[in-house]
Amino acid sequence: MEIPRLRVIGRLESPYRQKFATPRQPGLVPAVRSRLRIDPRLEPEHALRGLEEFSHVWLLFWFHLNTNKAYRPVVHPPRLKGRTIGVFASRSPHRPNPVGLTVARLERVEKGTLHLSGVDLVDGTPILDVKPYVPRYDSLPGARSGWLERHEFEPLEVRFEVELEPELREVIAQTLATDPRNPRDRAQRAEGKDLYFLLGDIDVRFSIRGRTATVHGVERGSKRKPGR
Amino acid sequence: MEIPRLRVIGRLESPYRQKFATPRQPGLVPAVRSRLRIDPRLEPEHALRGLEEFSHVWLLFWFHLNTNKAYRPVVHPPRLKGRTIGVFASRSPHRPNPVGLTVARLERVEKGTLHLSGVDLVDGTPILDVKPYVPRYDSLPGARSGWLERHEFEPLEVRFEVELEPELREVIAQTLATDPRNPRDRAQRAEGKDLYFLLGDIDVRFSIRGRTATVHGVERGSKRKPGR
Repeated sequence: MEIPRLRVIGRLESPYRQKFATPRQPGLVPAVRSRLRIDPRLEPEHALRGLEEFSHVWLLFWFHLNTNKAYRPVVHPPRLKGRTIGVFASRSPHRPNPVGLTVARLERVEKGTLHLSGVDLVDGTPILDVKPYVPRYDSLPGARSGWLERHEFEPLEVRFEVELEPELREVIAQTLATDPRNPRDRAQRAEGKDLYFLLGDIDVRFSIRGRTATVHGVERGSKRKPGR
Repeated sequence: MEIPRLRVIGRLESPYRQKFATPRQPGLVPAVRSRLRIDPRLEPEHALRGLEEFSHVWLLFWFHLNTNKAYRPVVHPPRLKGRTIGVFASRSPHRPNPVGLTVARLERVEKGTLHLSGVDLVDGTPILDVKPYVPRYDSLPGARSGWLERHEFEPLEVRFEVELEPELREVIAQTLATDPRNPRDRAQRAEGKDLYFLLGDIDVRFSIRGRTATVHGVERGSKRKPGR
């Protein structure tokens, strides 16, 4: 029996333009805003009716930036610093069916467009489905989460050497608090190394020493092409 | 950009053999047991490593029993008794990409097989992914759930005219408490009408009057073919 081919219902518009610095979990950067315009052929004026009353939605999406196509039964989650775990015990992008699941806060629905916050996806991510978040089915606060409980994320402190408007400052602070560096990339992790990430067309220059990230400056209207 | 074709990672083995009486939500029938054997080509002995420490898993699955293939932007959820809602404001099977999301309790992992409870899926459902449930990302107890909050499910009382072993009795009681009848099927909803559902090879005969379901008898080793 063959699964019918899936279709993209819309592409997420997100200020994160590359994998680097895109949050690894939903809700870590509640200040970040993104948008999803539903394909007009799906008649969003009807298909979204009633959704505005929900505070959160699930997004099913395609991990379109996967490069390694070969299946591997184990993965290296960033938090395990080189150790491996079974792919089905992880939320890794590299899975038999590269479909992801993430929850977003629904700020409002406007003419076929969902305005979202807290999304951990890169700009252009193909969205496959939107489902309402229903706490009665979906919320299990007491569930045990295995190895993830022993590898809790510990936020960095973030300092600014520049004055920024509060909204931008907040997004940058929450983003850098997640420590975007790859734990397995030694060059990137060198103490005080000059790093940057793109937030829309704003280039953010920063460095990390110990548990503190420092923002040195931002360049607006950056023409730099996003890397990986 | 085309989404790669998805593959089935395993088919759920569930005692519910037809849509009728299969719970409409996860967790309504915590007593029911089901199993998922992962395709051996995915090397489950590695791919499931670490999953045994999680208490719950997400299942992504294909709604393989959908018959109506044409897209409709609104749906008729059973609880709205004829009124409609946008498809993206519902968890209806009839959606642009017929992929479902449900959470299951993970009882144990044994040689490439997940032993699950509380699953709301029909026997043979093609599973597309297993992901660990992580309360820190997935649990939002305070989320608002719109129209679903105003249409809470009210369980039926269940009585038995037969003696049954406790496990079977519990599964039947929890299943019938959900009121499996289609709110739009007047014949099925006729007061006291003789009804039945299949649980594995056990045919369960029952009827419903008012808010009480009564189990009249069970037939083991039933050869009856499941209906819809």
